[in-house]
Amino acid sequence: MTTKAHQTEIAVDPDVPLVRITREFDAPPEKVFSAHTDPELVARWLGPRRLAMKVDHYDCRTGGSYRYLHVGDGAEFGFHGSFHEVRPAGLIVQTFTFEAIPDSVALQRLVFTDLGGGRTRLTSTSLVDSFAGRDAFVASGMEAGVREVYERLDAVLAG
Amino acid sequence: MTTKAHQTEIAVDPDVPLVRITREFDAPPEKVFSAHTDPELVARWLGPRRLAMKVDHYDCRTGGSYRYLHVGDGAEFGFHGSFHEVRPAGLIVQTFTFEAIPDSVALQRLVFTDLGGGRTRLTSTSLVDSFAGRDAFVASGMEAGVREVYERLDAVLAG
Repeated sequence: MTTKAHQTEIAVDPDVPLVRITREFDAPPEKVFSAHTDPELVARWLGPRRLAMKVDHYDCRTGGSYRYLHVGDGAEFGFHGSFHEVRPAGLIVQTFTFEAIPDSVALQRLVFTDLGGGRTRLTSTSLVDSFAGRDAFVASGMEAGVREVYERLDAVLAG
Repeated sequence: MTTKAHQTEIAVDPDVPLVRITREFDAPPEKVFSAHTDPELVARWLGPRRLAMKVDHYDCRTGGSYRYLHVGDGAEFGFHGSFHEVRPAGLIVQTFTFEAIPDSVALQRLVFTDLGGGRTRLTSTSLVDSFAGRDAFVASGMEAGVREVYERLDAVLAG
């Protein structure tokens, strides 16, 4: 197991309104996958450190759905979506809406690739229906947020 | 109520991999919406005339999911997805996969617009993650299929 920090790569697609985030983790695919499907584990990393995550429901299976809140700073921020398809240790396809922008929906695809040696590459793509929406999302400080949540996920995987 | 046939407009977006289908119906939004949410009604129009529709489950509410089969010609064709958001008589946002192409997922948005006088405009957009996928879908005979299912829907609404 390496101790150096892993880079988070964030790339916008030139042709379609899509953001692709790539990150490696020092844990096998089964473990990285479980950290995405078990709501008790998810609550320990999915969101900024300064906010608590409150899970309303999180039923990560094909045909399931989720809703959670980030709570703090005197406010609550709600998120919800559906799990279109869940393949153990391999794939999660889900929808995602930040409820402050209720008409905005992203289609997200998380691919867990076994790199061998107990390591996993997670590739996460988010597709939306306009370049303006995609670019506003990237400009909103997404990059710092993604780095922070994946550092938190590193800690969950090491624990 | 007019008796002339309504045009189905199918347009591909030049900038994003999206197909937009627009069609008017001689029924109010509540009725057109019910024909999309009640599985017994859905089974009467959603698919080609020559195939029977077999509903595995169809739970059209925010967070629900569906699966159905088109059966005939000695074969079964499966489809499944999730209902990301359902707003009565106004909006359905859902995912869609044709199971013969299991990695292909469309994000679909159905908007029911009240035109007054007991008429409704239905705008249905399907977003996918590549232009090649979008164009293959359009080239696959989608247009004739859409016209046929909306003629069947006309009959359900008139019945």
